[in-house]
Amino acid sequence: MPRYQAPLRDLRFVMDELLDYPAHYAVLGKGEDASPDVVSAILEEGGRFAREVLLPLNQSGDEQGCRRLDNGDVKAPDGFREAYRQYVKGGWPGLAADPEHGGQGLPASLAMALSEMICASNLAWGMYPGLSHGAADALRHHGSDAQQATYLTKLVEGTWTGTMCLTEPHCGTDLGLIKTRAVPVEGDAYRITGTKIFISAGEHDLAENIVHLVLAKLPDAPEGSKGISLFVVPKFLPDGAGNPGERNGVVCGSLEHKMGIHGNATCVMNFDDAIGYLVGPPHKGLACMFTMMNAARLGVGIQGLGLVEASFQNSLAYARDRLQMRALSGKKAPEKPADPIIHHPDVRRMLLTQKAFAEGGRMLVLYAAQLLDRVEHGAEGEERERADALLGLLTPIVKAFLTEVGFESTNEGVQIFGGHGYIKEWGMEQLVRDARITRLYEGTTGIQALDLLGRKVLMSQGESLKVFTKEIHKFCKTEADHPVLGEFIEPLAKLNAEWGELTMGIGMKAIQDREEVGAASVDYLMYSGYVALAYLFARAVKSASAGLEGDDQAFYKAKIDTARFYYQRILPRTRAHARMIQAGAAPLMAISSDDFGLGFEI
Amino acid sequence: MPRYQAPLRDLRFVMDELLDYPAHYAVLGKGEDASPDVVSAILEEGGRFAREVLLPLNQSGDEQGCRRLDNGDVKAPDGFREAYRQYVKGGWPGLAADPEHGGQGLPASLAMALSEMICASNLAWGMYPGLSHGAADALRHHGSDAQQATYLTKLVEGTWTGTMCLTEPHCGTDLGLIKTRAVPVEGDAYRITGTKIFISAGEHDLAENIVHLVLAKLPDAPEGSKGISLFVVPKFLPDGAGNPGERNGVVCGSLEHKMGIHGNATCVMNFDDAIGYLVGPPHKGLACMFTMMNAARLGVGIQGLGLVEASFQNSLAYARDRLQMRALSGKKAPEKPADPIIHHPDVRRMLLTQKAFAEGGRMLVLYAAQLLDRVEHGAEGEERERADALLGLLTPIVKAFLTEVGFESTNEGVQIFGGHGYIKEWGMEQLVRDARITRLYEGTTGIQALDLLGRKVLMSQGESLKVFTKEIHKFCKTEADHPVLGEFIEPLAKLNAEWGELTMGIGMKAIQDREEVGAASVDYLMYSGYVALAYLFARAVKSASAGLEGDDQAFYKAKIDTARFYYQRILPRTRAHARMIQAGAAPLMAISSDDFGLGFEI
Repeated sequence: MPRYQAPLRDLRFVMDELLDYPAHYAVLGKGEDASPDVVSAILEEGGRFAREVLLPLNQSGDEQGCRRLDNGDVKAPDGFREAYRQYVKGGWPGLAADPEHGGQGLPASLAMALSEMICASNLAWGMYPGLSHGAADALRHHGSDAQQATYLTKLVEGTWTGTMCLTEPHCGTDLGLIKTRAVPVEGDAYRITGTKIFISAGEHDLAENIVHLVLAKLPDAPEGSKGISLFVVPKFLPDGAGNPGERNGVVCGSLEHKMGIHGNATCVMNFDDAIGYLVGPPHKGLACMFTMMNAARLGVGIQGLGLVEASFQNSLAYARDRLQMRALSGKKAPEKPADPIIHHPDVRRMLLTQKAFAEGGRMLVLYAAQLLDRVEHGAEGEERERADALLGLLTPIVKAFLTEVGFESTNEGVQIFGGHGYIKEWGMEQLVRDARITRLYEGTTGIQALDLLGRKVLMSQGESLKVFTKEIHKFCKTEADHPVLGEFIEPLAKLNAEWGELTMGIGMKAIQDREEVGAASVDYLMYSGYVALAYLFARAVKSASAGLEGDDQAFYKAKIDTARFYYQRILPRTRAHARMIQAGAAPLMAISSDDFGLGFEI
Repeated sequence: MPRYQAPLRDLRFVMDELLDYPAHYAVLGKGEDASPDVVSAILEEGGRFAREVLLPLNQSGDEQGCRRLDNGDVKAPDGFREAYRQYVKGGWPGLAADPEHGGQGLPASLAMALSEMICASNLAWGMYPGLSHGAADALRHHGSDAQQATYLTKLVEGTWTGTMCLTEPHCGTDLGLIKTRAVPVEGDAYRITGTKIFISAGEHDLAENIVHLVLAKLPDAPEGSKGISLFVVPKFLPDGAGNPGERNGVVCGSLEHKMGIHGNATCVMNFDDAIGYLVGPPHKGLACMFTMMNAARLGVGIQGLGLVEASFQNSLAYARDRLQMRALSGKKAPEKPADPIIHHPDVRRMLLTQKAFAEGGRMLVLYAAQLLDRVEHGAEGEERERADALLGLLTPIVKAFLTEVGFESTNEGVQIFGGHGYIKEWGMEQLVRDARITRLYEGTTGIQALDLLGRKVLMSQGESLKVFTKEIHKFCKTEADHPVLGEFIEPLAKLNAEWGELTMGIGMKAIQDREEVGAASVDYLMYSGYVALAYLFARAVKSASAGLEGDDQAFYKAKIDTARFYYQRILPRTRAHARMIQAGAAPLMAISSDDFGLGFEI
C-alpha cells in the first residue's frame, strides 16, 4: 500500500519560520485559540487521521468506485461513510467556521494546511467534505439569516454536505448558456427544473442531507451571464425542526465513468420541479457563485499540492529501495548487487522536481492562506484591499499552476517506479489519474489563465500585479547583501522586472487585438507561477540560513539545496514561456478552422 | 465513439514530396514492388482496416480487458481474435518480411507508415502483432537456419506471435541481474526456469502458438550483463511437421492490472523446465536482444505518434463543434448562441501543439524509416555506415521524444474537451492512459537519454551527432536565400550550432565527473528532439512552398503555418533545456539520499 506521512516538519518551517504564523494569528486575534501548541496538536491529529483512516481507503475506493441504485441513491465505496462519521465526530468540518454557526473559529489557513493532508491521502474521499466548504461560503456571504440557520449550521456540523451545481451538458465554462429554469412559488421559494452534470458528491450515503447550490434562470432573466440566479436546493426539505423531511425533486440520474477519483460520485443531477430558495439577489447568482468558486479554486490548488507530496513520498521510498545499475561515478552500495536508484542523477532530477513543487507549492498555498485570513478577519482599509488584490491575483495561480505541476510531479512518480508505476498495485498511476481532473474542474487552466491575465492583471491596469512585484522588489533590495541569498537575488530581481515588462508588452498588443490576451494567457500563468515560487524559495533560503548552525542543520541545508535546484533546473522554464508570450497571437490564428484537418480529411 | 481517419494526404506529403520515397524505393530496388500506386493502395487499405476493424474494438477492449482462466489461458477482449484473423488473412504480418521467409519483401518504411494507423486506432490490439516483429528480427539476424524455418516463417505468416521476455521482478533496466536459468539438455536445447514479468502479449487466444524470446543465464555464465544468453521458447513445441505439438513448460501466472492498454495481456510468465533453444552464441544474448529492442524502440515511438494523431483528430472535431463563449475579438458564429471553441486562441494553441507533433513526428519517423530501409537493404560501405550511425542516433529520440510529446499531446486532447475529456465515454482519457506506458516500456525516457548521450554521442566522440548536424548545416547553407525559408534558416542554424556546443560542454564536464552525463541526459534528448523536428519542419516549408500556387494550396499554406507555429511557440522550449543542461550535475547531487525526506520523516 502507498505510504503517507503528514509533512509536519516542513509545515512548521513554512508556518512558523517562513511566514511567522504565530504573529499573524496574534494579529488576527486568534493568538490564544490558535497557539503554536494547539496548531501543532491539530496538525498532528489531522495527519494521523489522514494516514490511519483515509489512506487505507484510497486504493480500495478507486477499485470499487461508487454504485447507483435503481432509485437514484448512491453508495460510496466501503469505509467512506464510517470515515466521514469519524471526521464529523472529530469536529473537523467546522474547524475554521464561525462560532456563531457552530464552528470553532480557527483561522482558514489552518484548515487549508489540513486540507493538503486529506487530498494527499485520499482525494476522492476529500471531495465529499471539500465541496461543503464552498457551499457554506456562499451561504455565509449571501444567504439570508434563515438560510444560514437552516443550512449553514448543518454544513458546519458536517451532518449535511454541499454541492455546486453549475455545469450543464452544453455548457461548463460559459454559464450564460444554462437552461435550468426557476419558477417563483412564493416568498423566496421557487420550482427548479433542469439537468446538471459533473456534480461532485451530488448524491451519496455519507450525510443525512445534501445541500445543492444551483444556478438557474428566472422567467424574466436577461440573456447570458447577467441573468443567472443562485438557489439552495436541499435533497430533503427541512421540516419544522430543521431536520430532513420530505424528499425534494432532485435525483441522481446516473454516475459518470471517469479516468480517476472513482471514489467520488460524479453525478448527473435531474431537477424536476424541485423546491429551491433564492440566495442573494435575483440575476446576481454568478457573482454569488464566484464566492464559492474562489474558495474552491484555492481548494483545487491544494489538491494538486497534496498529490505531489503523496507521489514524492512514495517515489522517495522506492528510489531508496530499488537496486538497478551502478552509479556512473562508482559503486555507492558495493555490498549490494546494484546501487539504489536514488544515486542516479536523472532519478534525483525527478525526485527533486517533486520535492521542489511540494515544498514550493506548500509555501504558495500558506502564503495565500495568510492573505485569506486577513481578508476574512483581521485586516481593514488599505491593508485589506492590498490582501484582497494579492489573493485575487494568486488564486488562479494557486489553482492552475499547482495542478499543472501537480500532474507533472505525479507523472514523475510513475516514471521513477518505471514499469511498476504503470501497475495499479503500487498506487502511483492512481495519483496521476486523480490529478488529471484538477487541471479541469473549477475552471480549466485556460480559464484560470484568462482570469489572471485578463480580469486580474490587465483590467486593473497591472495594479494587482504591482502589489506583488513591489513586495518582491522590496525583498530583493533589502536582502541584496545577504551572505547566503546572493545567488538567488539577482535572478529573482531580473525575473520580477521581466514579469512587469511582459505584462506591459501583452497589454500594448491587446489594445490592437484582444486575441493577444488568450494567446499569451497560459504561458503567462505558468511564468507567473514560476516567479511566485522563486520569490518564496528565496525567502525560504533566508529563513533556512538562520538555522544552518543549529540542531536541525540537515533540514535547513536540504531546504537551501532544494531552492538551488529550483533556481537552476526549474526556473529556466521561464525562458521558454517568456519567448512564447512574446511570439504573440499571429502563429495561433493563421490557419483557418476549415484547414486544420487537411492532412487526414478527405 | 472516437473517430479516426488515416492521414493519407499528410503521408503522401511526407513520403512523396518531402522525402522522395519513390526515388528512394527505386534505389532500394523496390521501385516496382513499391510503386506509388501500390503504396497508395496499401496505405488506403491499411487505413480502412484501422478505421473499420480496429477502431470499433478500442473502447470495448479497454473496458473489457483480458481474462485469465484457471489453467493459465488468456482470453483477449471480444473481437480481438477475429480482427487478428482478418489481419493475417490480409497478409499484413509479412508485408515487409523477406520473401525467403514467406514475406512480401516490401520496404520496412512502408510497414512503419501502416503501424502508425494501427497504433492510432487501437494500441492494445496493435501490440499483439507488434511484438512479433521484434521476435522475427531477432531470429532473422541471429537464429539458425532451422530456427528460422521453424519459427520465423510462422511469425511472418502471423499464425504464431512473438514476445520479448526480459524483465524480472527485481530488474528491468539492469538485465545483468536476471535470475532465470538455462540448463543444457542436448544440442541447442536447454531447460529454462524462472519468472518474467510485464510480458506483453505473453499469453492470449489470437494465434495458434506463441514464440517467446527469453533472456536467461547458462550455468557457467559470467556475472552481470556479459553472462546473458538468448533462447527461443515456444508455447507449444513444434512437432515433426512444424505444427504446434506438446505444451511446453511456460505458463501465464497472472495478468497485471494496469493504468491502460487493458486490451493487451501483460503477463507474469512462469518458466518451469521449459524447453528452449539457444539463439546466437552463448553469453551474447544481450547483443542479440538489442536487435529486437532497436526495432521495438522505433515501434514505440510510432505508438506515440499514432496516439497524437488520434487525439488531434478527435480534439479538432470537438473544437469545431463545441460552442462556448464568444471570441474576444468579436463573434465568429453570430447565428449560434456562442462561438465554436476552435476560435479561442488558447484552444488553437493546444490543437496546433497536437498538429505540430503529429506532423513533425510523422516526418521524423519516416525519415528514420528511410535510414532503416538503407541499412537493411540498398546501402553499402560508407553510405550504409552513415545511415546506421544516424539511425542509431535517432532511435532513442524517436522512442523517447515522440512518446513524451505524445503524452503531452493526448493530455492536450483531454484539456480541449474540458470535463468531458475526463469521462470515459469520449475516449480521450483512454488515449492518455494508453500513452502513459510508452514513456516506460522498451527503456524509459531516462534510459533512452543515456543511450543517446552516453552511448551514441559521447562514445563516438560526437561523430554520430556530426553526421546529422552536418546535414542540417548543409541544408541551411544551401537554402539561405530561399524566399519562403528565410525566417526558419537563421534559428535552425543557430540551434544546430548550439547543439554541438552543448554536446562539447557536457563532454568536457563528463571527463571530470561521469554523473554529468546522467544529469544532462533527458534535457539533452528533449533538446535534440526539438532540433530534429525543427530541421524537418524547415524542409517541409521548402517542399510546401513549391505547392503554394497549385491546386492544393490550402494544404501547403497550413503546412507552412504549422511550421511557423512550431518555430515560434514550441521551439522556445530549447531555451529552457539548454540552460538546464548547462546547470550540470551539482544541483542534483547536493542533497544526501538520507536527507531527502526530512520534511515529513519523523
